[in-house]
Amino acid sequence: MYILSTISGHRLEDVKAASSGPVWYQLYLTGGREAAEAAIERARVAGFSALVVTIDVPVAGMRERDVRNGTKELLSDNLVAKLPFLPQVLARPAWLTRFLVDGGVPEPPNIVILGAGPMPVIDVGAALAQTMVTWEDLRWIRGLWPGPIVIKGVLTGDDARRAIDEGAVAVVVSNHGGRQLDCVPASLHALPEVATAVSGRAEVLMDGGIRRGGDIIKAICLGARAVLVGRAYAYGLATAGEAGVARALEILRTDLERTLKLLGCTSVPALDRSYVDAQTN
Amino acid sequence: MYILSTISGHRLEDVKAASSGPVWYQLYLTGGREAAEAAIERARVAGFSALVVTIDVPVAGMRERDVRNGTKELLSDNLVAKLPFLPQVLARPAWLTRFLVDGGVPEPPNIVILGAGPMPVIDVGAALAQTMVTWEDLRWIRGLWPGPIVIKGVLTGDDARRAIDEGAVAVVVSNHGGRQLDCVPASLHALPEVATAVSGRAEVLMDGGIRRGGDIIKAICLGARAVLVGRAYAYGLATAGEAGVARALEILRTDLERTLKLLGCTSVPALDRSYVDAQTN
Amino acid sequence: MYILSTISGHRLEDVKAASSGPVWYQLYLTGGREAAEAAIERARVAGFSALVVTIDVPVAGMRERDVRNGTKELLSDNLVAKLPFLPQVLARPAWLTRFLVDGGVPEPPNIVILGAGPMPVIDVGAALAQTMVTWEDLRWIRGLWPGPIVIKGVLTGDDARRAIDEGAVAVVVSNHGGRQLDCVPASLHALPEVATAVSGRAEVLMDGGIRRGGDIIKAICLGARAVLVGRAYAYGLATAGEAGVARALEILRTDLERTLKLLGCTSVPALDRSYVDAQTN
Amino acid sequence: MYILSTISGHRLEDVKAASSGPVWYQLYLTGGREAAEAAIERARVAGFSALVVTIDVPVAGMRERDVRNGTKELLSDNLVAKLPFLPQVLARPAWLTRFLVDGGVPEPPNIVILGAGPMPVIDVGAALAQTMVTWEDLRWIRGLWPGPIVIKGVLTGDDARRAIDEGAVAVVVSNHGGRQLDCVPASLHALPEVATAVSGRAEVLMDGGIRRGGDIIKAICLGARAVLVGRAYAYGLATAGEAGVARALEILRTDLERTLKLLGCTSVPALDRSYVDAQTN
Repeated sequence: MYILSTISGHRLEDVKAASSGPVWYQLYLTGGREAAEAAIERARVAGFSALVVTIDVPVAGMRERDVRNGTKELLSDNLVAKLPFLPQVLARPAWLTRFLVDGGVPEPPNIVILGAGPMPVIDVGAALAQTMVTWEDLRWIRGLWPGPIVIKGVLTGDDARRAIDEGAVAVVVSNHGGRQLDCVPASLHALPEVATAVSGRAEVLMDGGIRRGGDIIKAICLGARAVLVGRAYAYGLATAGEAGVARALEILRTDLERTLKLLGCTSVPALDRSYVDAQTN
Repeated sequence: MYILSTISGHRLEDVKAASSGPVWYQLYLTGGREAAEAAIERARVAGFSALVVTIDVPVAGMRERDVRNGTKELLSDNLVAKLPFLPQVLARPAWLTRFLVDGGVPEPPNIVILGAGPMPVIDVGAALAQTMVTWEDLRWIRGLWPGPIVIKGVLTGDDARRAIDEGAVAVVVSNHGGRQLDCVPASLHALPEVATAVSGRAEVLMDGGIRRGGDIIKAICLGARAVLVGRAYAYGLATAGEAGVARALEILRTDLERTLKLLGCTSVPALDRSYVDAQTN
Repeated sequence: MYILSTISGHRLEDVKAASSGPVWYQLYLTGGREAAEAAIERARVAGFSALVVTIDVPVAGMRERDVRNGTKELLSDNLVAKLPFLPQVLARPAWLTRFLVDGGVPEPPNIVILGAGPMPVIDVGAALAQTMVTWEDLRWIRGLWPGPIVIKGVLTGDDARRAIDEGAVAVVVSNHGGRQLDCVPASLHALPEVATAVSGRAEVLMDGGIRRGGDIIKAICLGARAVLVGRAYAYGLATAGEAGVARALEILRTDLERTLKLLGCTSVPALDRSYVDAQTN
Repeated sequence: MYILSTISGHRLEDVKAASSGPVWYQLYLTGGREAAEAAIERARVAGFSALVVTIDVPVAGMRERDVRNGTKELLSDNLVAKLPFLPQVLARPAWLTRFLVDGGVPEPPNIVILGAGPMPVIDVGAALAQTMVTWEDLRWIRGLWPGPIVIKGVLTGDDARRAIDEGAVAVVVSNHGGRQLDCVPASLHALPEVATAVSGRAEVLMDGGIRRGGDIIKAICLGARAVLVGRAYAYGLATAGEAGVARALEILRTDLERTLKLLGCTSVPALDRSYVDAQTN
């Protein structure tokens, strides 16, 4: 199952067409309601099976690593601003060549401003700063999207209950990779409270920190139905393209099965809290 | 809002005149009661809006970094004593030039010994060693100062209650930057107990460890009405003068607003303990 | 007392004949039931006094150090695969010479596949992957082995009770040196729960982390009757052969006696939980 | 107040004669009962005011640093054994010269074996290994020593109660600098339990870890009447002889007074548990 982000380098229709399994569409309100409306409609027509609404990015977080690496400057058109950050790029000529051959920085083709075309990547951060998602927005989205809605970025039992009351069929316990709010709890630590609050009324998914098969097992023991992975497959993709992604998933699957056997547990559904020794409040 | 320390390089009247916002005067009993009496009267005439009485410096703390850096020797007139510590100063010629051009070590013009003029900085430490503030002193100060009195350096609920009983309209939870008493608790850890003890009868402020907007949020969630910052603005000041101070405050304000949004909280007054996961006794 | 593993470099009959004390036989189901049946019969005839059934190796764990060191490649016949890992071996010519003189990689003479002879070491890992021990297997083993059976690899009170119900006269609290299941609890931490569950109905042994005499004392205080050591004697063996093993055991014994005296405890049986300050749930 | 150890480089009579304050005699049963009997009588005649019986050295601990440094070899007469450890000594020629001028390794003149004279230092360790102090020994000592007896090396409430029942007027909470029993609790952590058990029936002293004035304060807050220092004065002694010892004590005293003032506490007897935030069971 794949979740395509609004902020993606490929047209959502192309991704759907190339997928054999179900694909969900992850919506950001970047670009405003009109851009979102168009994207939702495109996703519906293309056949995406669920809409994932991300609620933990009302503004871009303060990512100090991005500041040190000059992410903003490198994406800009200002050559003088880029200069101090070029050495780290030039020091990797093979990577740079492949990057340029591949077309350089892609424009996100799923954020189309009416009458202006795709939004440049450099503007996405600024646009994010004005796109807080409210429960009000969610009701408006429900009017546009007839299929199931998943709320991503839930970290408390209260928010999970509210999300379900507002019509979500699933919540994703997530802290956005820890890159949004400094000092935010690990999603694994927030998971038990959410699972207890949801109490079977909706599906509970989780992302964040899934590096091995044992991490998936822990999340399931603590109440997740499944997990989302981001870096694991991206590392595989960067290293070896499609084969790399397949290998990354295979590593996780093999490790998951090995860990199950070592636990003496016969199947994933048979996992429960007795298999972990987590300190929960 | 600015709090001017007794131990300052500028005349209190000048600071007040140059400020557009409210200014409080932070009183140390250095120099004895007569010097304090004169300073309180000067602060009253100049229009300071509150008097901050610091109670956590009955003696100078054992600051081992000062010993290693030769702070005492460098401030003295003894050239032989200075010698071992000069290399660290001479190694920074640009700083040294600016320091000398700026007038070198300033005399604290707000501690005036009758018939002797301003007290040399080198004597301030020794003078501090004889200036414990007692509740008795506080009553004497109340007789001299008709305006609001703030007690700075409170770390327990008992001391906070006593301060209010003695007439304080606000307390500052502070451990003096951790530079006074070794092994003292962090002011953030002491804050909940103080806030509970005060229970709305006075304002609770806090200083210590405010480096980011999120630190301000945490303090407010745990019971502070506002926070004081020292190093943050001083670093800005040392780096770029007035512009640096403005930038330091802007960094804190921007980060405060970003953190509020990421928390999904609409305003500072809406913050409460549910937003933090602090272990309190 | 010595426990001989199925995966050993010496014939079980030779080991028994060379031992003056009791010897137990540690059974792995590697090679399938027929190979196991033959080995059990050989152990019975040779006079082994107990059978140790290891239940924590249903599959080989993911030992990343083995991957980095190229254990699989070095054991294989594929010279090209071996190449990248040879430098670490060639850098130790003295060790390499002794290793080759000693006969190189031994074949495990106690896993005899009918009609095929001893199984090559390289295949043992793969074979392990298909040899989960179930309670069903245990009943079948009990039919073959008339003597006492010890279950090794117990980490919970439930498993310990089940093992005793299935006929075990002793359990070994063990996590297989922490090399099987990532994030498994230390056996010392699992020991109190097991000891409480067993409650005198069987013997409780423990292995894992025994490096000093004090470690033995801690295990006994927390409920073990005795401990098993692996690395300690193997280090002695690698360093100085038989004399090294004797010295390793002497170090442990001396340290055990010294620690007893320093505790003011007169004998090993007099040890109990009051001598340790362990946090148990 | 000074406590002279049995294992000292100076005659106990000389130490007493050179002291203006009270001196206690710390008894080890090294050398057997006859040697101890003679030493106790000498201490009584010389006017020592109390006898300190050390109970935490039934055998010498396993001090691995001594093994690495070759303490035993360097003290022996075996030149070949000494050889590997000489470089560390020869690398400090100034120290070595002073050491030899000072007379080299002193013989402990307070352990006199009848008919054999002082025991060589090299034999003290071996002798210690046979000198466990039992409650039986304590009764025998009480018959020889009419004055107050202090039991040093108590770490539990039970041992403290027993020591008082056997006639001790004071106990010293001590783990012998952590050099005897590996994994022993810090004496500061054992102190509250002992203080509660003693409950005023005897004096409670403590040693171990006293490096600053604040450490003394913590011990007193947690129930000690006073503390013993070893390394602090020894460092001063090694650095600058008598002046160094005086300076070490002055540093501790000054820091004690400063800390008292910073705590806002008027005197040492006014200290209690409310001044510390120790987690006790």
